Amino acid sequence: RIDGDRLWDSLMEMARIGPGVAGGNNRQTLTDADAEGRALFQGWCEAAGCTMGLDTMGNMFATRPGTDPEAHPVYVGSHLDTQPTGGKYDGVLGVLGGLEIIRTLNDLGIETKHPIVVTNWTNEEGTRFAPAMLSSGVFAGVHQQDWAEDRTDAKGLRFGDELDRIGWRGEEPVGARKMHAFFELHIEQGPILEAEGKQIGVVTHGQGLSWTQVTIIGKDSHTGSTPMPMRRNAGLGMARVLEKVDEIAWSHKPHAVGAAGHIDVYPNSRNVIPGKVVFTVDFRSPDLSVIQDMEARLRSDGQKIADDMGLEIAFEKVGGFDPVAFDEGCVAAVRAAAERLGYSHMDIISGAGHDACWINQVAPTAMVMCPCVDGLSHNEAEEISREWATAGADVLLHAVVETAEI
Amino acid sequence: RIDGDRLWDSLMEMARIGPGVAGGNNRQTLTDADAEGRALFQGWCEAAGCTMGLDTMGNMFATRPGTDPEAHPVYVGSHLDTQPTGGKYDGVLGVLGGLEIIRTLNDLGIETKHPIVVTNWTNEEGTRFAPAMLSSGVFAGVHQQDWAEDRTDAKGLRFGDELDRIGWRGEEPVGARKMHAFFELHIEQGPILEAEGKQIGVVTHGQGLSWTQVTIIGKDSHTGSTPMPMRRNAGLGMARVLEKVDEIAWSHKPHAVGAAGHIDVYPNSRNVIPGKVVFTVDFRSPDLSVIQDMEARLRSDGQKIADDMGLEIAFEKVGGFDPVAFDEGCVAAVRAAAERLGYSHMDIISGAGHDACWINQVAPTAMVMCPCVDGLSHNEAEEISREWATAGADVLLHAVVETAEI
Ligand SMILES: NC(=O)NCCC(=O)O
Ligand SMILES: NC(=O)NCCC(=O)O
Repeated sequence: RIDGDRLWDSLMEMARIGPGVAGGNNRQTLTDADAEGRALFQGWCEAAGCTMGLDTMGNMFATRPGTDPEAHPVYVGSHLDTQPTGGKYDGVLGVLGGLEIIRTLNDLGIETKHPIVVTNWTNEEGTRFAPAMLSSGVFAGVHQQDWAEDRTDAKGLRFGDELDRIGWRGEEPVGARKMHAFFELHIEQGPILEAEGKQIGVVTHGQGLSWTQVTIIGKDSHTGSTPMPMRRNAGLGMARVLEKVDEIAWSHKPHAVGAAGHIDVYPNSRNVIPGKVVFTVDFRSPDLSVIQDMEARLRSDGQKIADDMGLEIAFEKVGGFDPVAFDEGCVAAVRAAAERLGYSHMDIISGAGHDACWINQVAPTAMVMCPCVDGLSHNEAEEISREWATAGADVLLHAVVETAEI
Repeated sequence: RIDGDRLWDSLMEMARIGPGVAGGNNRQTLTDADAEGRALFQGWCEAAGCTMGLDTMGNMFATRPGTDPEAHPVYVGSHLDTQPTGGKYDGVLGVLGGLEIIRTLNDLGIETKHPIVVTNWTNEEGTRFAPAMLSSGVFAGVHQQDWAEDRTDAKGLRFGDELDRIGWRGEEPVGARKMHAFFELHIEQGPILEAEGKQIGVVTHGQGLSWTQVTIIGKDSHTGSTPMPMRRNAGLGMARVLEKVDEIAWSHKPHAVGAAGHIDVYPNSRNVIPGKVVFTVDFRSPDLSVIQDMEARLRSDGQKIADDMGLEIAFEKVGGFDPVAFDEGCVAAVRAAAERLGYSHMDIISGAGHDACWINQVAPTAMVMCPCVDGLSHNEAEEISREWATAGADVLLHAVVETAEI
């Protein structure tokens, strides 16, 4: 069993870095706060006897050696970056839960055949640089590194330049590591485990994601002196597309979701009819054909809305991944661990994307989930109990150690 | 007759300050570019023999003395600030048209009984600091100066601080001046004069305006793992209100308009359901009861939309003025001038707000309008012809000189 108080104290200490405005965190990727969080994590890992590896995407790898020099490591981890209005646990629990495994094994003097490596993947959230899970995606060979480094934030700053600026670019090539397996502990970010009264979610699948950036072009003009019939109001066009996005997602109920979180209006002046809007539609489903249907309907319905209003519209896919089925052996190890420890559990589909979704393409992978209060995440008020964190890390410990072999 | 080429050259020289990205201007109020434009204007006025007055709101007053020391001046002018995507003529034509009158009277050696004062009113556009026509409003006693100076821009910078920063706060108290009359030349910013083939619009009325800032509060949450029925999507609530704004404006066809030009979404992250949106609805009509009806329906329909979606909504009036009837004597002077000069003309209602709308409360006031291509304004592509500018300034000259008495 891991030390739940120690894990909790580390979570709270990390949460002091990049504080938000309402009790959560704003520790976005490749900011100064991200650098500070990385340094704190590195210090803890070194104090636990690990050596830190760092690749050229800034992915961090803290290694606890195994007894068999030939054996590939078992990887465990998640991400330390947060949303602008982020919680204290999203990602962080998975990284510090990995560290807690190492600390526990050290306390107990347990050695494993396979090394254990705790990872912090760069830019999981995708809020500053789309797409999400960018660096685990490069690691898994899904994205070209050059392309990834060219991603820009809202100010036009490049990922690669910001990585250099905060001083966390390593020398190790990305994706060079061979993995025996990968495990990620994460909060559910949804309401199911809490509603069902289960302590552990055994994640069998992850739903797929599609991000489509929509640009609508109308004509900047005066809100007072432009007669209604002459208007080409890109903002009103966006309103109609947003309504359609909602309708499309509901039409696949209960297995699809859709919304736009990112919306920029130009020139954004009270007395100028918007001449341009750019927004990103997020569609998700565990069923690939549903995602494809939603994407296609967004494009055709959006085009029709624009045509009817004399607007131009363009669609660009800026992120996404197909639904994931996690490795049966790793999933079984998680289920067996929960069972062995006497924690109530259920199989679950992840609603969010995770680094594990990409790593699953290059290594046997599974995830452990713990509940979060009211299913709330990507909100500073995100909350979990110390008991839930402890149970999740306990299950992670057992699944990892079983896989890493004593 | 004024010198149309000289007027045009001055317009083009002013347009070099604070250039936009597409041939127009971004010379927003109280920016460094605004300061530069003011200095250029002051230099021109002094070269034309005027003395410059400056009040504590940064309003500029270039005086050409009259022959009767007791006579109150005839004022003429508009504003030099622009929208972020502004044209080269909106406001500028009225200020430089006033200067051109002085230059013409100088050339002809004509003296007037009443002094003539050319004004540049600070922050007419209202894009950086709401409301529009802020400083002419303080001059007319509509706004308290303290309140006006406390207006903040999107970065939270105060009007008063920015005025000090650019160094254009004067010592003269605001509104102390007595006016014999005020005339404003402005481009129409709408399509009517061009469509009717008229060179001059004799502005008899101005339509009224209401700006309501709407804040919708939902709940930041994860776009992937939050089930559709649990969402409180403030962005979707906004979309529904925007659709309603359009419907409300059309319901009063042809005498009302409505749109939202300003929209801010929080936290504006692709994978966070918007927890908050703030946007400003602009309703206008020449009929006060129509404006009141639209405002009331926005509040009641908006409340209903929010209630149905589990959202909170709040409404704040951040600007507005009642429909205006300009002074019959001044309007007649404009009409007579157009007639005398042989320019085709028609009576027209201003679709936009103007400094003249506030000054009309404290002095006999009228406006002269000239056409603009395709009715386009608040767009960098705003265009007028040299002939239209010349005709407008000619009419302004005659109306002003008749009122100022030779
Ligand atoms: N877990 C998580 O919030 N990841 C961010 C990517 C996503 O939007 O699903
Ligand atoms: N003329 C003009 O564009 N004024 C700005 C105030 C308004 O929005 O009407």
